[in-house]
Amino acid sequence: MGLTRDIAQFAIGASGDEVSKQARAVMALSIMDWFSVAIAGKDEPVTRIVFQFIQKEGGAAQSSILGSSTKYPARAAAFANGVASHALDYDDTHFAYVGHPSAVIVSATLALAESRKCTGQKFLDAALIGAESACLIGTWLGRGHYQAGFHQTATAGCLGATLACARLLEFDMKKAQHALGIASTRTAGLKSQFGTMGKPYNAGAAAANAVESVLLAEHGFTSAGNALECEQGFSATHAGEEHQLGNFTERFRNNCLFESVQHKFHSCCHGIHASLEALAQIMEEHRVSHEEIKRVSVSVNPRWMKVCDIKQPKTGLQAKFSYRFALAMLALGIDTAAPASFVDEICQSMELGEFAGRVQVEPDSEHPDTAATVTIEAHSGSIHDQYYDLENLPDLAVRTRKVRSKAGSLIGETAARQIWNLIQALPHTSIDRFMQDAIASDQAESRVWPRSER
Amino acid sequence: MGLTRDIAQFAIGASGDEVSKQARAVMALSIMDWFSVAIAGKDEPVTRIVFQFIQKEGGAAQSSILGSSTKYPARAAAFANGVASHALDYDDTHFAYVGHPSAVIVSATLALAESRKCTGQKFLDAALIGAESACLIGTWLGRGHYQAGFHQTATAGCLGATLACARLLEFDMKKAQHALGIASTRTAGLKSQFGTMGKPYNAGAAAANAVESVLLAEHGFTSAGNALECEQGFSATHAGEEHQLGNFTERFRNNCLFESVQHKFHSCCHGIHASLEALAQIMEEHRVSHEEIKRVSVSVNPRWMKVCDIKQPKTGLQAKFSYRFALAMLALGIDTAAPASFVDEICQSMELGEFAGRVQVEPDSEHPDTAATVTIEAHSGSIHDQYYDLENLPDLAVRTRKVRSKAGSLIGETAARQIWNLIQALPHTSIDRFMQDAIASDQAESRVWPRSER
Repeated sequence: MGLTRDIAQFAIGASGDEVSKQARAVMALSIMDWFSVAIAGKDEPVTRIVFQFIQKEGGAAQSSILGSSTKYPARAAAFANGVASHALDYDDTHFAYVGHPSAVIVSATLALAESRKCTGQKFLDAALIGAESACLIGTWLGRGHYQAGFHQTATAGCLGATLACARLLEFDMKKAQHALGIASTRTAGLKSQFGTMGKPYNAGAAAANAVESVLLAEHGFTSAGNALECEQGFSATHAGEEHQLGNFTERFRNNCLFESVQHKFHSCCHGIHASLEALAQIMEEHRVSHEEIKRVSVSVNPRWMKVCDIKQPKTGLQAKFSYRFALAMLALGIDTAAPASFVDEICQSMELGEFAGRVQVEPDSEHPDTAATVTIEAHSGSIHDQYYDLENLPDLAVRTRKVRSKAGSLIGETAARQIWNLIQALPHTSIDRFMQDAIASDQAESRVWPRSER
Repeated sequence: MGLTRDIAQFAIGASGDEVSKQARAVMALSIMDWFSVAIAGKDEPVTRIVFQFIQKEGGAAQSSILGSSTKYPARAAAFANGVASHALDYDDTHFAYVGHPSAVIVSATLALAESRKCTGQKFLDAALIGAESACLIGTWLGRGHYQAGFHQTATAGCLGATLACARLLEFDMKKAQHALGIASTRTAGLKSQFGTMGKPYNAGAAAANAVESVLLAEHGFTSAGNALECEQGFSATHAGEEHQLGNFTERFRNNCLFESVQHKFHSCCHGIHASLEALAQIMEEHRVSHEEIKRVSVSVNPRWMKVCDIKQPKTGLQAKFSYRFALAMLALGIDTAAPASFVDEICQSMELGEFAGRVQVEPDSEHPDTAATVTIEAHSGSIHDQYYDLENLPDLAVRTRKVRSKAGSLIGETAARQIWNLIQALPHTSIDRFMQDAIASDQAESRVWPRSER
């Protein structure tokens, strides 16, 4: 068989009935999160530049681009929305995939589904199976691929999105394999562009490549059928580790990888998130106010010390990489979910600076990357500590509350509520109607709630 | 400095005055050859599929696609013409670049130049400097990059085409470096797709990527400035060998690499070309007819024995990989330059089969890949032998005659003559007028000279 054939068979063959209720609920969260970060990212400079490029090219009115009332070709919509949803680097992540699944997979699948006036149910199934395929391909390629310098969000993402789109168009095995072959020789993306507009661009280009690969295969384009694993194929040329995966369908039924997708709830460096969650938990459970706190100690994996322990941030961007400042913001009730909270002025705040002075950060190699322990000492003398590991996902109700709250912070309460309701009704709505309503919700919100400049 | 900066500086800074007359003449040959193979390749299945995809997307009427009277966005035109010009694998090649330069560079530069209504002179300068840049980047990456599985036509080609387009739009250093950064994270192409539609697709996608990279950089898109040589940059992730190149500008003035571009003159496997040239030379110089030939012996590098020594071809495609048959065709006056000559029926020809039986092929490791020795023994008893190495390029007059003769075989005498005249007048013509006239020449020819089905 070989991976190309196996993964194609899984993606086009998996029955929608095998999808658990939990997996469907998590997909809905990721779609809500995708809208939040994409709407919040649509005015970023990189998104605007890509949109101008697309506007000048024009083309058939097929699919929606967030922030625009004109439709564009499906490939262009996948490109623009892919860039928008990764522009803030605030979109969902997956450990097995080693990257951000929805920026690529939702962007591509949604654009193609809209251009074909698919039902919401068909889109949801395709996006979920495509995301699961991307997690499987990401696992197969392994961390070696990422460590060699390839942006797995774009590479595994393009391949997974290609499978999602192949499923959407009800491809047979041959067509699905040809589409993967095309995607394998088209997809790219280097980590050495991180820190530039190149990072979100990689995600958008990957989504566009997936749409292109599937539309060419639909027209009869043929390619080498074992493109991922063959001699000098995608894996061999891209430092793939080719891990064993077992039987996909069985694995999916018993343990859907995509269910463990993570959503980011703070608009700062990922290394700070676990400590923010731990502090919030202490303050909430023990009803401690910031005035009562005498000292805060944080233990984290040593790798973070060089990443996000800026002691005296001077700009909002630097505050995103400062344990002391981010924890101070949370303690004082500033919304760390909103990118707009991280403005340069906060670094001048006496109150924040004073609290930040009470925070101490210690490296501790016993902590995994994803965990932190926060200990607080109150003026009363009482001591509370809390360990938090991002890998231990809270239950669905908590995840849902957090995703919806983040959406409110990012795009406004009304738009967030309306889009959430649209997503709940999605199985029974056509995608073009859904997108029209979602865009209307965003545009109405913009009029009554001007977001601060980023 | 670093390669990214150096090559960008060369490409945008080189003065048109430094371009030798010989280099300009060779560029004109490559443009003629590009039109020949692209027009001949425009009805290939892969080209038709890509064109259908482009047609459905539609968009701004900016640039011409061969075979279409509607214009499309520059990026789409680069894509379609890139695929068309590489579809027959009959386009120009360069040893240092390790690939086919014009399919990518001419396709991208021409499309962008037309969309901006540039002068012919500006286009010619940009294409030549871009092609030279691609040869330099190809040399820098080295054969290791190709041997690892990357399709250098697409990779070095996209980077060179990006520089050609950056020059066309008169970018400053910063913009040119950003464009290269974008291209470095966008370009792809695997050799494992050879033998499928993926091969010409790689060339077309590379041309489209170059146009996209430059248009984004023009709009203000920023990227990492040392994208080719930085840690985990393009070279490090793509098995680049990073050969030393010396001073580009000086090197270009003294030894323009692009001048040694090769044009293919026979529509069969490249391994047979040197022996065809040697046989033609003997028959012409010594006025030997095919009836007078008793025996033909061919010595070639052993690597070709497994590639193109099919003894009893059954199809036209197999005849393209048969020394005996291809030499028989040439000896009997069949036009080996025309792809249409290699039809299945020729394998049934008694006369060809009879001549083929007189040809013997011997492996000889003293011969380089690019050379052959042909010895003929006439019935009269006289013996002639001829060594031919494709690397020893004939003088410009001979190359010109051959390129024009190939053009006549491929696209018809009238169209070939008209397009040749248009290219001669190109320095003083605007590109949009030039393309309009070239397409009209092609379309007029098609009406009076129906080409046989391939």
